[in-house]
Amino acid sequence: MAHIYVYSPSGAVRDRAAFRRGIKRLQTMGHEVEVDPDALAAWQRFAGDDATRLAAIERAAASGADVALITRGGYGLSRLLPQLPWRALARAAERGTRWVGFSDFTVLQLGLLARGQTVTWAGPALCEGFGASDAADAAEGHGAVKAGGPDEIMLACFDDVVSGASEGTGWRLPARDVATLAGRPAHLARHAPLWGGNLAMVQSLLATPWWPEVKGGVLFLEEVGEHPYRVERMLLQLLHAGVLARQKAILLGQFTDYRLNGHDRGYTLAKVVEQLRSQLKVPVLTGLPFGHAPTKVLLPVGAEVDLLVEGREALVLWGHMH
Amino acid sequence: MAHIYVYSPSGAVRDRAAFRRGIKRLQTMGHEVEVDPDALAAWQRFAGDDATRLAAIERAAASGADVALITRGGYGLSRLLPQLPWRALARAAERGTRWVGFSDFTVLQLGLLARGQTVTWAGPALCEGFGASDAADAAEGHGAVKAGGPDEIMLACFDDVVSGASEGTGWRLPARDVATLAGRPAHLARHAPLWGGNLAMVQSLLATPWWPEVKGGVLFLEEVGEHPYRVERMLLQLLHAGVLARQKAILLGQFTDYRLNGHDRGYTLAKVVEQLRSQLKVPVLTGLPFGHAPTKVLLPVGAEVDLLVEGREALVLWGHMH
Repeated sequence: MAHIYVYSPSGAVRDRAAFRRGIKRLQTMGHEVEVDPDALAAWQRFAGDDATRLAAIERAAASGADVALITRGGYGLSRLLPQLPWRALARAAERGTRWVGFSDFTVLQLGLLARGQTVTWAGPALCEGFGASDAADAAEGHGAVKAGGPDEIMLACFDDVVSGASEGTGWRLPARDVATLAGRPAHLARHAPLWGGNLAMVQSLLATPWWPEVKGGVLFLEEVGEHPYRVERMLLQLLHAGVLARQKAILLGQFTDYRLNGHDRGYTLAKVVEQLRSQLKVPVLTGLPFGHAPTKVLLPVGAEVDLLVEGREALVLWGHMH
Repeated sequence: MAHIYVYSPSGAVRDRAAFRRGIKRLQTMGHEVEVDPDALAAWQRFAGDDATRLAAIERAAASGADVALITRGGYGLSRLLPQLPWRALARAAERGTRWVGFSDFTVLQLGLLARGQTVTWAGPALCEGFGASDAADAAEGHGAVKAGGPDEIMLACFDDVVSGASEGTGWRLPARDVATLAGRPAHLARHAPLWGGNLAMVQSLLATPWWPEVKGGVLFLEEVGEHPYRVERMLLQLLHAGVLARQKAILLGQFTDYRLNGHDRGYTLAKVVEQLRSQLKVPVLTGLPFGHAPTKVLLPVGAEVDLLVEGREALVLWGHMH
């Protein structure tokens, strides 16, 4: 059982049913859930004005919780970067608070990494992760729009992080990925810092004081609602800035909720990956189960990892993290 | 009468009627139009594969034309940045070829600026600018979807550039802009390099070798189809990177074709501008008639300009450019 502090650093929570389901789910799992007083605040599109959200983040840092969990992403942390309580955030992590979130939260995670070695967790948010409606709810209500409740793999990974048993993750690579690895050692990286998150948020830190200058790392990226040409433009910026060539490997997670159109004529996300590989010696692996999709592993941003490929299996290993 | 070379460096031309109308319009204006052999090439979403588009750009540079005009923007120049014939582009400009375009073309313009003092023109593209259907065409065809033909102001500005008579531009400021200028001199900038273009394309060059390190400049920005929160995120990146504070003034052009939604609750583009001004001492002027809208002035990217505000009128002056 863990003490989980739930707070809202970014967008306003509009789906209160998902919010309540998420809290109930965490409680059912045996956790003690502490809800920030402004978790449901709303101002314009944000979960309260900038001062309100800053104060919520400060309370999360002071909570002494085992896990500080965002309610949702959206947009809002970019506005707070110059004022974020970086030392308090790092100190909370040192004292054992695991910062968990994704999407907009990426900028806080990478900002911490730019300022030191603080490890945070790329993982679910309360509403989309733990608040996913289950089959019973869906059947009662408006039909089976979203069936199944929280994803079992995500829940198991979260449990592992909370209990300190999280040691790594693995997934099955597409055959074409394996073909591109011919001639490389199975062990693609050793003691390499793992970093990344949402591609647009990673991009948004380039040239700012919160950009982490990671060399020899394993960079993971995911995106939602962006057409492949926009994904390519962002990847090319990272390529042209020299960021990709300085890594040991690039891991592409889930790229979801975009739509090809009649103008594309065969241009697809697979073509983007192919084009990227043609310009980069660093291996690019796809299919990492992380992104704006229910099945999401938890990844320790800032931790040193080993990356191995055994047959069609990719493994990212970080040992025990306490 | 000018020699105008029409070529396609970015997206494939799909609207062939607009393409034909644009050429006819330029011819009616008395110009000699030379069409690149691959102006209508198509490969995936691009106007030909990368080698095809590079060759078209090289032909435009070698054409000796008075104006090299893109058929359209879209996406594609980011892929060519490492291979673009920068010297040939600059030499063509020195010999009198005016490079004209906008949107995706921004990266070529700023890349040239990063490598030297080459002046290019932010202005229309063939299809959207000169190929706009006029009232008669619309009445004949599918109804008055787009009435009016090419914008008169754009045509007049284009004529001025072609004849060497272009000296500056002016527009009427919103009253709230004027209020923010209280206490400042009327002459906001002298001999300041004018630069900018499409915001997403400007952003996409940050931290790359094609980023122009302009200090004491006048930076203009426009955007299309981006929600205000995304515009804000891009502006904040430029702010956090120190780019905005190094300029004499920021000119915001047209921000078009986005949609607010129920989640915004009073968050608007005006709020984004207000938020930006609260964090920046440099004056921010809005309403510049430039962007993805028919009324578009031509702006000399890389030229030295004076910026004046007289009452509600803003003036950007560059004197004669030959």
